[in-house]
Amino acid sequence: MKNIALRTHKRCAFIDITRKTQEVLNECGIQNGAVMVFVPHTTAGITINENADPSVVDDLLDSLGRLIPEKGNYRHSEGNSDAHCKASLMGSSVLVPVKNGELLLGRWQGIYFCEFDGPRSRQFQVTVLAAPE
Amino acid sequence: MKNIALRTHKRCAFIDITRKTQEVLNECGIQNGAVMVFVPHTTAGITINENADPSVVDDLLDSLGRLIPEKGNYRHSEGNSDAHCKASLMGSSVLVPVKNGELLLGRWQGIYFCEFDGPRSRQFQVTVLAAPE
Amino acid sequence: MKNIALRTHKRCAFIDITRKTQEVLNECGIQNGAVMVFVPHTTAGITINENADPSVVDDLLDSLGRLIPEKGNYRHSEGNSDAHCKASLMGSSVLVPVKNGELLLGRWQGIYFCEFDGPRSRQFQVTVLAAPE
Repeated sequence: MKNIALRTHKRCAFIDITRKTQEVLNECGIQNGAVMVFVPHTTAGITINENADPSVVDDLLDSLGRLIPEKGNYRHSEGNSDAHCKASLMGSSVLVPVKNGELLLGRWQGIYFCEFDGPRSRQFQVTVLAAPE
Repeated sequence: MKNIALRTHKRCAFIDITRKTQEVLNECGIQNGAVMVFVPHTTAGITINENADPSVVDDLLDSLGRLIPEKGNYRHSEGNSDAHCKASLMGSSVLVPVKNGELLLGRWQGIYFCEFDGPRSRQFQVTVLAAPE
Repeated sequence: MKNIALRTHKRCAFIDITRKTQEVLNECGIQNGAVMVFVPHTTAGITINENADPSVVDDLLDSLGRLIPEKGNYRHSEGNSDAHCKASLMGSSVLVPVKNGELLLGRWQGIYFCEFDGPRSRQFQVTVLAAPE
């Protein structure tokens, strides 16, 4: 398992962490199984989506912002209830199959750290899970 | 793997199951890997979110209720289509990394069973997944 | 790990892949642990929901279509931004516990491949994860 730090620069942003995840995989030397990427925050999430056209994740951020507005009739007094809700909609972890030491992502897939209450110092954890012998 | 029963008391409620999940982990003695918590229902889900201020999950329930109203132009005749939809939005499982026998949750994270069609007798399953040797 | 092809026939459809997932499990002979089903696409997702009344997943598709309309003020020029967003809302993988060689799904649960930009040739990957010895 490895903990990786990152710095976000806007309130809301999707940051591609695919390469960093593959680097952890390279270090640990596992050949087959799965990699779990986990976000230990409650106002950030993680998802897999297109990494070719950056407007895809911009549209995704816009859609989430339309569904869960920043300002609303919320009880939580810190002003970031929208961020908590978006985090649960995206989820706190993704799993990716591993074959011959490589992330078995589809052609257009990238792993995105989803910042919903930045800018902040953040982290994510990469854990390797074993296939049966 | 262990099956744990719980009783819900409202139609919609988020119930913190972090402590019960850690207890299963303590019993099984695994040191490193991940824990999967799975909900075998289709009108309940599971998510990870803030466990400090209870108004966070109240706001999350309100937002889900606004997005997916209980009454609507639904085809399913049991009157709980909103609950099925909310269950898929939250998801049926969460994964949490384990290190030295402890759930490696972030400082503010708790695991929540998400009841969307209670009150009912419910259950969840805790399964431990191994890290490679 | 096994890759399974499927063909979708509409723009949006939920296809029950529970039986095919169990068949992979039967072939590989694992007794205990978990199965991960992963979708290597960015305009399709995967979820677990009711497999008894087909109107449940029809209602789920309708609700997703109401939340994320096909036509909107999107930047991505391919006309399928809604599909990318719905894919992230459902997620790219599900995990199901396995006991004595059987998927430990709840009584009403089925695994659904979620097509949001078909008809297309698609695939999903079934990976078995081990429980500790």
